[in-house]
Amino acid sequence: MSAPIDRFFSIIPAGGIGSRLWPLSRAAAPKFLHDLTGSGQTLLQDTWDRLLPLTPPERIVVVTGEAHQSAVEEQLDDLIANNLFLEKSPKDSTAAIALAAAILAKREPDVIIGSFAADHVIVEGAKFEKTVREAIEVAATGKIVTIGITPTEPSVGFGYIKTGSRIEGADTAREVAKFVEKPNIEKAKRYVESGKYLWNAGMFIAPAKLLLDQLAKSEPQLHASIIEIADSWDTPARAETVARIWNNLKKVAIDYSVAEPAAAAGLVAVVPASFSWHDVGDFAAIAELQSQGRSGNLAVLGNAKVLADSSSGILVSESNRLIALIGLEDVIVVDTPDALLITTKAHAQKVKSLVDALKATGHSDVL
Amino acid sequence: MSAPIDRFFSIIPAGGIGSRLWPLSRAAAPKFLHDLTGSGQTLLQDTWDRLLPLTPPERIVVVTGEAHQSAVEEQLDDLIANNLFLEKSPKDSTAAIALAAAILAKREPDVIIGSFAADHVIVEGAKFEKTVREAIEVAATGKIVTIGITPTEPSVGFGYIKTGSRIEGADTAREVAKFVEKPNIEKAKRYVESGKYLWNAGMFIAPAKLLLDQLAKSEPQLHASIIEIADSWDTPARAETVARIWNNLKKVAIDYSVAEPAAAAGLVAVVPASFSWHDVGDFAAIAELQSQGRSGNLAVLGNAKVLADSSSGILVSESNRLIALIGLEDVIVVDTPDALLITTKAHAQKVKSLVDALKATGHSDVL
Repeated sequence: MSAPIDRFFSIIPAGGIGSRLWPLSRAAAPKFLHDLTGSGQTLLQDTWDRLLPLTPPERIVVVTGEAHQSAVEEQLDDLIANNLFLEKSPKDSTAAIALAAAILAKREPDVIIGSFAADHVIVEGAKFEKTVREAIEVAATGKIVTIGITPTEPSVGFGYIKTGSRIEGADTAREVAKFVEKPNIEKAKRYVESGKYLWNAGMFIAPAKLLLDQLAKSEPQLHASIIEIADSWDTPARAETVARIWNNLKKVAIDYSVAEPAAAAGLVAVVPASFSWHDVGDFAAIAELQSQGRSGNLAVLGNAKVLADSSSGILVSESNRLIALIGLEDVIVVDTPDALLITTKAHAQKVKSLVDALKATGHSDVL
Repeated sequence: MSAPIDRFFSIIPAGGIGSRLWPLSRAAAPKFLHDLTGSGQTLLQDTWDRLLPLTPPERIVVVTGEAHQSAVEEQLDDLIANNLFLEKSPKDSTAAIALAAAILAKREPDVIIGSFAADHVIVEGAKFEKTVREAIEVAATGKIVTIGITPTEPSVGFGYIKTGSRIEGADTAREVAKFVEKPNIEKAKRYVESGKYLWNAGMFIAPAKLLLDQLAKSEPQLHASIIEIADSWDTPARAETVARIWNNLKKVAIDYSVAEPAAAAGLVAVVPASFSWHDVGDFAAIAELQSQGRSGNLAVLGNAKVLADSSSGILVSESNRLIALIGLEDVIVVDTPDALLITTKAHAQKVKSLVDALKATGHSDVL
């Protein structure tokens, strides 16, 4: 059998609207299709580039909704047509990742897959590569490997990974004792103080077969459906099979269907990330990211002409308008052709409820 | 001679950009062309309607810049073509009012004129009418009459009128002891506490001839130029005369050229206003006006779809966009097709410096 890295395949699940980034991120143009870092590239393009030192374009798969096909193709020049897996409708992360794993395993039985969300921000590419390479080596020994982020604060916005003993022979990898769901603040503080917990960033590296075997045990029906679709994928029967099965696929996060039961069975390892990581879940997080190394400034994303007088925070503009701000502290301004959001960093999380309210009041045209 | 009211003519000087109301008010669409009260009419239309109980359309004149001719004609259906006096360029209030007075005096020698700015807010129409009627009676006795606003606070934004003794036979009119310029806050407090001072709202009612005689004394050259233009106005020589003289007209406020010297000569009276008055000089003033009788609310002018969560202040929109505000206190948002202003009520006065900065940085396309 060839070396683990030569059997490796990257999967980029590109889904999730990112309600807390409305009105920038929305159904028609979700988070991963935007440049949220000022890098000049979208998060999807950044993710692609980050994976190139691990996998050539022929070994990178993107899983996304049918609605985003043209945007994804436009943004990723080097994506192989055969490696774009389109979802008929959103069915959560198990369907997306397990289907990709099953199609790839059918094409190449010994494949080791790694799943990396399209909308996370990781700037230290070399450290990312080193961490994933270790994860691939550990995965090849028969493990589902996740990457754990060392907490920088007692966040209640992430699930945590309780680490176990060191894995013999590995550089930094540890057994995973268990996954724990998003804690309250007291628990989060204890987790962080203990030094035994890492954030779960949702990255999984595993032999495709092992991941599918685990799914077969915990969700046999979903597994059977996934395998049936995968078997038909590269055949003329794909359309008929998808049409018949897709809508009935169970929606479940891969954390529940695979990671947690596998951890309970002692099959999961974690490699602590040596890189810094951001999920840019809301505009406050983007402002934070933009203002690193500066203070009290206004971060500007987009091509607005801006005149700011004693203002700080973040301004995201998709218009060419002149925007003038006077005397606003920690403000968030998001200016799009059909919707304008103005709030403050302290209220960044409330954007999600706003989107819910928009749904409820019949404004789905701007969602 | 006929009764004073029958000799009365209303002059509406419609000028002044209102920099502190940028980006709503601008060179091409100044303050008086906007609905700033939510009345459904512009300030100019409100001013016109307020004058109708005093003067029929044939006895109302509008003085405005050539650039605003079509907007004014569109907004004032009943304006007589012959009563629209167009200024070749802005030359301050003396030129505007004295020229109108001189043209009207030429048409009707015994005319009493009243000058009422196009961009003030007065909602109590009946009280306004009563106050002006008294002013006209007093003017007919040979006085230049101003209308004084009872101060509601020690404002440093207005000039003040020091009142003298009651005028015999008049209802409420008093002599004007003197006009004083915008005071500092200490002086303003003393003025208000004394009970002897009123705000100068820049309304003047006087026999046209008396006003022009006073101008002849204080600004003989300007007076001569004005008379020369007025003499030509209703003749084929108008265009040539205006082309030759207009650009050299001295720019001076009527307060300096007429009101102050006339007061020193004992020729000015004041009728205290029985109505409430607002000059809506900035967005904080508009917010104030809108929020009367309510508290902590967001006032909305324009046709935006608004979703506001625990926000207060004022939102002015000329777009049809959805605007969402979360957690903003005393905010000012002004949304126009090519420019967006966001600030707070506390910084409303700074909008003028912003406009100056825009001029300085070559953004005059949005001014």
